[in-house]
Amino acid sequence: MSQRQNDQTIADVGEFALIDLVREQLGTSDYVLVGPGDDAAHIATADGTYVTATDILVEGRHFRRDWSTAADIGRKAVAANLSDINAMGGVATALLVAFAAPGDTPVSWVTDLVGGMVEECAKVGARIVGGDMSAADQVVISITALGDAERPVTRSGAQVGDQVAFAGTLGLASAGYGALSRGFRSPKAAVDEHRAPHPPYAAGPAAATGGATAMIDISDGLLADLGHVARASKVAIDVDPAAFEILDAVQTVAGALGGVDPLRFVLAGGDDYALAATFPADATLPDGWTRVGVVRSGAGVTVGGAPWEGGVGHKHWT
Amino acid sequence: MSQRQNDQTIADVGEFALIDLVREQLGTSDYVLVGPGDDAAHIATADGTYVTATDILVEGRHFRRDWSTAADIGRKAVAANLSDINAMGGVATALLVAFAAPGDTPVSWVTDLVGGMVEECAKVGARIVGGDMSAADQVVISITALGDAERPVTRSGAQVGDQVAFAGTLGLASAGYGALSRGFRSPKAAVDEHRAPHPPYAAGPAAATGGATAMIDISDGLLADLGHVARASKVAIDVDPAAFEILDAVQTVAGALGGVDPLRFVLAGGDDYALAATFPADATLPDGWTRVGVVRSGAGVTVGGAPWEGGVGHKHWT
Repeated sequence: MSQRQNDQTIADVGEFALIDLVREQLGTSDYVLVGPGDDAAHIATADGTYVTATDILVEGRHFRRDWSTAADIGRKAVAANLSDINAMGGVATALLVAFAAPGDTPVSWVTDLVGGMVEECAKVGARIVGGDMSAADQVVISITALGDAERPVTRSGAQVGDQVAFAGTLGLASAGYGALSRGFRSPKAAVDEHRAPHPPYAAGPAAATGGATAMIDISDGLLADLGHVARASKVAIDVDPAAFEILDAVQTVAGALGGVDPLRFVLAGGDDYALAATFPADATLPDGWTRVGVVRSGAGVTVGGAPWEGGVGHKHWT
Repeated sequence: MSQRQNDQTIADVGEFALIDLVREQLGTSDYVLVGPGDDAAHIATADGTYVTATDILVEGRHFRRDWSTAADIGRKAVAANLSDINAMGGVATALLVAFAAPGDTPVSWVTDLVGGMVEECAKVGARIVGGDMSAADQVVISITALGDAERPVTRSGAQVGDQVAFAGTLGLASAGYGALSRGFRSPKAAVDEHRAPHPPYAAGPAAATGGATAMIDISDGLLADLGHVARASKVAIDVDPAAFEILDAVQTVAGALGGVDPLRFVLAGGDDYALAATFPADATLPDGWTRVGVVRSGAGVTVGGAPWEGGVGHKHWT
């Protein structure tokens, strides 16, 4: 991009020129039969079906422009969506991106955002195949991910006696949020994970192949999301609090915040985009998966056999 | 819905209860293998591929809550998306809806919005299969439509000598916008079309079957959108101004606004979600299509052989 473009706002260049600029950043793949620039994209599937999910991220609610770079926000927005496909045991192939922002947003902020999106997409081989733009009072990013899942794993298949396991990182992103919200800029591992998480993209398809009976991605917090699985599967889940390794950065933040129980970040923190799944009792867990609990008859989620009193999950408008 | 819910805001009931309420309004179809409520939806295709497009609508830019009912806004938001699938010659089967709004938004406004969406979806047999919700300072609706197209028609296939034709209504919605913006509430035909347009959903697939070489939906205005076709196809397009029937309501608004040329609404007004397409010179136009011009060599769009001086299209941030 030229220096002149770096100084410009999106109102300066206008919608069509901005779309042209962004389009240059996108690649293509064998799945993309018709890509960006037409009324609709035309995408091939592996088996005649596809899985799809959408997420909407709002400035000040899901990200802050003073806390995260545009590239980090782009990576996180895409990661949140790819994670939903991962949680079905799928692999994303295509994304649509809707973007709204105030006219004084720098063009370079938008191209950096898209750069981060493209980088995150590359981790699974997905491409941005279409989108839309509008003016708005605050930045809003809405992404739809599309992909293939050979054997989609829903939330509703957990069976009494199943093992409960997770893959990925737990507590790091919410510890990072805790640090940032108190004005800290460290520990780096936690703050970076909040800004741009690293979902375990190989773990979803591996769980599907490995016989997972139910799966979900952890965006509301492990206990809240296991609660969704328990409700959908009409079972109870008990989690063993001793099964979790508490990462150093999580310990550090818990201490800095005046002795918060670090397990709170692990059990109730969202935004790591880890996966939780249930597997038959006799299944060998795939690589990257750790056993942390068991499925029982009944309802609800317990920790070491008792209700968890540390608070769960994040809700909008409350 | 109970009276109690009618008085409540979305902050009162919270995200999960609101999602449950909305989910009750959605139906299903044979295409929907896994519907709302899981990490992702799982959808079947007719031929192993799908077409998909996304649109983002922002309060105060694309709709006003004091001009339109929630149901009309829902119908229009869905119509804008279904129109993109229509413009590929496709039929939508599934939609994902991302929704952001202030906490003081009434629950009944949201359920009425979704009611309008479901009603518009029913016109083509599509279903809402997933979505997301967030708090935001203004209402933002981002929809992704997915569907089947046996023979996708892009913007880039127009050939010199082709006929240019349109299907649907031209000028009515923008005349309605003109009336509303001056404080009028009539003529009803125009105002209603602005609030909730009636895209010609049968005309897109008919054009694909009938040999259309290029197609686009008219959201920026006929001339602006034919400009997109001309650019993508590397041709020129000339439109015959005498080929258009000017609807009574358009005449009325043009007169009421102090002698505006009514052709301006027809040629430059968007939001009707009509279709424009090109067909081989010897093709018989399908039902619902009217010939209005010809494809020539060169570049750009002219009206009766001359540049149109009446202004074209709508741009964001300008």
